[in-house]
Amino acid sequence: MNGAPVAIVLMHYPVYDRNHRTVVSAITNLDIHDIARAARTFGLSRYYLITPANEQQRLAGQIIGHWQQGYGATYNPKRKVALDLVTVNSSLADVVRDVETEYGVAPRLVATGAAAAATVTYAGFREELRSSSIPHLLLFGTGWGLADEIMAAADVILPPVKGVGEYNHLSVRSAVAIILDRLFGE
Amino acid sequence: MNGAPVAIVLMHYPVYDRNHRTVVSAITNLDIHDIARAARTFGLSRYYLITPANEQQRLAGQIIGHWQQGYGATYNPKRKVALDLVTVNSSLADVVRDVETEYGVAPRLVATGAAAAATVTYAGFREELRSSSIPHLLLFGTGWGLADEIMAAADVILPPVKGVGEYNHLSVRSAVAIILDRLFGE
Repeated sequence: MNGAPVAIVLMHYPVYDRNHRTVVSAITNLDIHDIARAARTFGLSRYYLITPANEQQRLAGQIIGHWQQGYGATYNPKRKVALDLVTVNSSLADVVRDVETEYGVAPRLVATGAAAAATVTYAGFREELRSSSIPHLLLFGTGWGLADEIMAAADVILPPVKGVGEYNHLSVRSAVAIILDRLFGE
Repeated sequence: MNGAPVAIVLMHYPVYDRNHRTVVSAITNLDIHDIARAARTFGLSRYYLITPANEQQRLAGQIIGHWQQGYGATYNPKRKVALDLVTVNSSLADVVRDVETEYGVAPRLVATGAAAAATVTYAGFREELRSSSIPHLLLFGTGWGLADEIMAAADVILPPVKGVGEYNHLSVRSAVAIILDRLFGE
């Protein structure tokens, strides 16, 4: 891909639950698969899963490993190619440090949310990514969305994905697919 | 929504398996939820699940019912609003007949697929839907895609969703989200 190296970060902490409490949400099997396949399709550099919970990190590692080795890798090699993008990390700070080590420059943080106050348009940010060489991290929240402290730390906030009318409750998997298409699709 | 009434049809038969045999694929819990939420977000008229297997029809009915009645409906009313769009049918012919009865005109069939030979562009078809009042059915295949007989019966074939490079293996959930955004998003 020409332009900025862009990775996805799926945050399981800090995110809100339905009562606006900050929680660690659970890793979901299909979040790993669907988002890895979308990330590979749209040419992203990496897909980071963030959870501070050791047990959840182990679970994610098992799911990924199943498709990377042995029977799973043979049965469906295209899953392996997608899951090779996935890394499990304890915190966003860890990921930022890793990316900075790899590229020699700190990544810009790009937040998304169903009620976010946008700082860019999709068309404008698409062009910005094409002409940049700075690494970017696209942050997505699970549960009821990214905690305010993450939104506040972001350098860029993307517009919410809106449909027709008031109902606006896409799964994070659907939101990721649409946003990657808007930024990198043909 | 102004323009044509558009419904989604998720086909579990006739679709191909990995060896290009025509099979009945299994209903997936998250296909029901994610696609119902996307269908509601983008203002579709209905979401039809097609399977000829009685046991699979019962399973789908149970999943939908859980969120429409009792505890599920109270716990997450937004799920109910989405799942109210869902109908389980035995065949595409059944759905076509129901739509024709409802609107007094046969629906146009719109097929999708990762290797489809397109008859329209997204921009052109988006305009066509806006200025039409004929019902349309957007057909999506599970497994390894819609059987050739369905593609052959389609009035319109949408272009495959392409990313960057050769890898092009989105989940049907991701493909639905992207295609609805391209046709109905802001």
